[in-house]
Amino acid sequence: MSNATASRAFANLNGSAGRQQKAVTVDGVTLNGPLSDNRDGERFLEDAFQIIMNEAVKKGTDVTEKVCDWKEPGKLREMLDLELRETGENHERLLQRCHDVAKYSVKTSHPRFFNQLFAGLDHHSLAGRFLTEALNSSQYTYEVAPVFVLMEEVVLSTLRSLIGWDSGDGIFCPGGSISNLYAMNLARYRAFPEVKQRGLWAVPRLAVFTSKECHYSVGKSASVLGVGLQNVHAVKVDERGVMIPEDLDEQIEKAKSQGSVPFLVSATSGTTILGAFDPLDKIADVCEQHKLWFHVDAAWGGSALLSKKHKHLLKGIDRADSVAWNPHKMLMAGLQSSAFLMKDSSGLLKQCHSANATYLFQQDKFYDVSYDTGDKSIQCGRKVDCLKLWLMWKATGTLGLEQRVDRAFAYTRYLVEEMKKRGSFQLVVEPQFVNLCFWYVPPSLRGEEGSEGYQEKLSKVAPTIKERMVKKGSMMVGYQPHQDKVNFFRLVVISPQITRADLDFFLDEIESLGRDL
Amino acid sequence: MSNATASRAFANLNGSAGRQQKAVTVDGVTLNGPLSDNRDGERFLEDAFQIIMNEAVKKGTDVTEKVCDWKEPGKLREMLDLELRETGENHERLLQRCHDVAKYSVKTSHPRFFNQLFAGLDHHSLAGRFLTEALNSSQYTYEVAPVFVLMEEVVLSTLRSLIGWDSGDGIFCPGGSISNLYAMNLARYRAFPEVKQRGLWAVPRLAVFTSKECHYSVGKSASVLGVGLQNVHAVKVDERGVMIPEDLDEQIEKAKSQGSVPFLVSATSGTTILGAFDPLDKIADVCEQHKLWFHVDAAWGGSALLSKKHKHLLKGIDRADSVAWNPHKMLMAGLQSSAFLMKDSSGLLKQCHSANATYLFQQDKFYDVSYDTGDKSIQCGRKVDCLKLWLMWKATGTLGLEQRVDRAFAYTRYLVEEMKKRGSFQLVVEPQFVNLCFWYVPPSLRGEEGSEGYQEKLSKVAPTIKERMVKKGSMMVGYQPHQDKVNFFRLVVISPQITRADLDFFLDEIESLGRDL
Repeated sequence: MSNATASRAFANLNGSAGRQQKAVTVDGVTLNGPLSDNRDGERFLEDAFQIIMNEAVKKGTDVTEKVCDWKEPGKLREMLDLELRETGENHERLLQRCHDVAKYSVKTSHPRFFNQLFAGLDHHSLAGRFLTEALNSSQYTYEVAPVFVLMEEVVLSTLRSLIGWDSGDGIFCPGGSISNLYAMNLARYRAFPEVKQRGLWAVPRLAVFTSKECHYSVGKSASVLGVGLQNVHAVKVDERGVMIPEDLDEQIEKAKSQGSVPFLVSATSGTTILGAFDPLDKIADVCEQHKLWFHVDAAWGGSALLSKKHKHLLKGIDRADSVAWNPHKMLMAGLQSSAFLMKDSSGLLKQCHSANATYLFQQDKFYDVSYDTGDKSIQCGRKVDCLKLWLMWKATGTLGLEQRVDRAFAYTRYLVEEMKKRGSFQLVVEPQFVNLCFWYVPPSLRGEEGSEGYQEKLSKVAPTIKERMVKKGSMMVGYQPHQDKVNFFRLVVISPQITRADLDFFLDEIESLGRDL
Repeated sequence: MSNATASRAFANLNGSAGRQQKAVTVDGVTLNGPLSDNRDGERFLEDAFQIIMNEAVKKGTDVTEKVCDWKEPGKLREMLDLELRETGENHERLLQRCHDVAKYSVKTSHPRFFNQLFAGLDHHSLAGRFLTEALNSSQYTYEVAPVFVLMEEVVLSTLRSLIGWDSGDGIFCPGGSISNLYAMNLARYRAFPEVKQRGLWAVPRLAVFTSKECHYSVGKSASVLGVGLQNVHAVKVDERGVMIPEDLDEQIEKAKSQGSVPFLVSATSGTTILGAFDPLDKIADVCEQHKLWFHVDAAWGGSALLSKKHKHLLKGIDRADSVAWNPHKMLMAGLQSSAFLMKDSSGLLKQCHSANATYLFQQDKFYDVSYDTGDKSIQCGRKVDCLKLWLMWKATGTLGLEQRVDRAFAYTRYLVEEMKKRGSFQLVVEPQFVNLCFWYVPPSLRGEEGSEGYQEKLSKVAPTIKERMVKKGSMMVGYQPHQDKVNFFRLVVISPQITRADLDFFLDEIESLGRDL
């Protein structure tokens, strides 16, 4: 800030608040007047907002704009001039920086962004996110976050009621991986509360059960929790990627016979790649029989609970002990919105995680301290994640969210039928959900299936098409090898801003980009 | 959305993009036209932004407004009408909701909010946060977050250079507690990499060392990691709350003699309550001697590294293996900004946490996949936390941030001197940092120290004054009992928007609210 600006700030604020005083200097620092000028800052925010609206929101959702403006890392680093220096930059230069950040960022809200399990833009949610940021609060005590403590509870309770629970507990976590980690820690705590104090040496070797198709966070959590990856037992799946409950039972018996103590089964509702739904009712039977904690990782598939037509996919979820559900995925609440939900209402979540810090959770406060919910968390400061989802829900209604879910299923059906009409696409598996996994088979490979080198040639098709679409900026879709299958595309269409034209464009564009391969 | 709106949205978007098509219905869902109208959404965002500017940003920093508008939980719940319903609400109603959320939220940016270790508002950071939200990206691959992958590395590298490291590694975490958890996991991994696969049963009982004054997240992390709270050894502190390195050495020897295997020392630079700085050089000597991972929890005090005048408090931090540092605290980057920084540049962070998910981290991408840094994390999707700090730094410069730090120290010096002049305040300890811990001694208790019932009466002063200030809305400051001390206030003044008048007001207001006690 220039000296002139500093003087003005000083005059403005002292003037407006009527707080003129003799200057006091302490350790060489003059304390009268603020160090920065709020009016300058507000002007910057106003101007930056216009750039955000134009470059990120409007262009980011405009089908005539590029999804991405690809640059090589070295080139982009040079263009952005990222280095942080001793002195600050001026208003115009900083606005230009906002512009450039938007320009070279991938437009995840674009109607042709199909690359992840999130996409699209809900404007109401975004308004809730802006408001959340402006209020800059931390979700731990009623004292500092009164609105958000109450709001989080209502949002979690609404999600629980869709699961079929009329009571329970829960918390918003920084992503589904952490929600799954919570489940593992809670399951361990219920089975062996002494681990919290004494560590894992106090108990026998534990065992977790999940399908081969589960999200990788189950394994990561086992490593972090000290349970160890090799104590995560991979249950067999059928050809759709669905857990085989009979094998679950066998694996549990086998682990027991080897001296391990099973404590958790993590089923998946909507696997990451194939979108498979494990049979929850049958898994619940196995869990009841063996008295195991039953967690459902519904981070991706949980939103199907909003659809009267499709919620049967999660039948039995009400029998779970805990559920992870990410409304930032199909519901478009914005990153991050991940609910960890529990059936328990005896206070297990707080008992498992509490440290009773006196500086936050004083017991002699003048209000009901049961509203100070921060000790349920393994975090201390915790971002407010409820407002964006709440405001979106208030704007859209449960029925509006249901429409989004039904529409995503309909996109998928449409694409499956269109792919079958064209000769160039081959499904990896008939989709249960909205993950559409397919190979594009270029003309040179059609009819060659089974021939020597076919799989290797096919494995190179998706990466090449992907490179071409990214460099062109026309769209983005993910691919991966998986189990014994070579690289295939995983298309996920969820944004309500998408039209049939975008679906047709997708198919045409894949064909166009891969025709010569 | 009404039918009329739907039709308009349909017409607009098909019109503007020139994509008119025959309607196609799949499973009862019509796919032509988007489900929602971007223009309606943009209008809402524009209107909501004005409310955010007025109610959260301007009023939130206006000293003539209340810090909080206290309502009992039951009353507030009723006023806010939080319930989520089947149908959505209209534009005006939703704007009113934004207004109400702001009105009843605590204004953490207010010049009289001293309740936590964060406060104040940096407008440039807030612009960065809005832009982050609008771009809605996840920080895992270069493909989807090209700007942010490069930017995070520059910001982390800048923080590392202030520590004194010219290479290293790191990642932004959702809060300092998670950063401390990372340190413990990394330390364990370096000492016993087999835990990742085989769990803690493969190794002897481990031991962690930290001071009695450490943040509670060290204990929480030990519980989560399966190490157990009782294997966290509390090292003695002196009367200022500073770790006594001789006791550290003794505790390590004692734990070894009892069959435990020490693997981590967690020192604190800026303890939560007293603001104490552990003697890092001496602790580093002990860690070297015993070959232990040396972590510094500088979540709070790390920002003193920016000050040429005060960085001596962290002398020896360059000898640490890892550091947690939260720029959302003293630097005002906004919740959450927490850097976990490591000296290691051999790839330990990624080796410790990686799961090599094929659907994200394909090895046959067309660019250098070393830029896909997401597998360093225990999260999968991860919020972009670098942009807000980067933009603030670009605007303020390193020297501007240094001014903020120096100013916070000067506020504290000023307040200490003023308290000493008045007869009504008693310091708990002479501050090392900007945590000013004190008792207000009301007239009825002055000169009574040591008399029967004095401590009990004194313990009720802070809670009563706190209740009065919150109900009045004049300011907010935290209090707590601590070790053998009864309730005292912990004042933390860091916002550059604060003037000397706010400091005088604080002292006057405490006296005014507590005079009759």
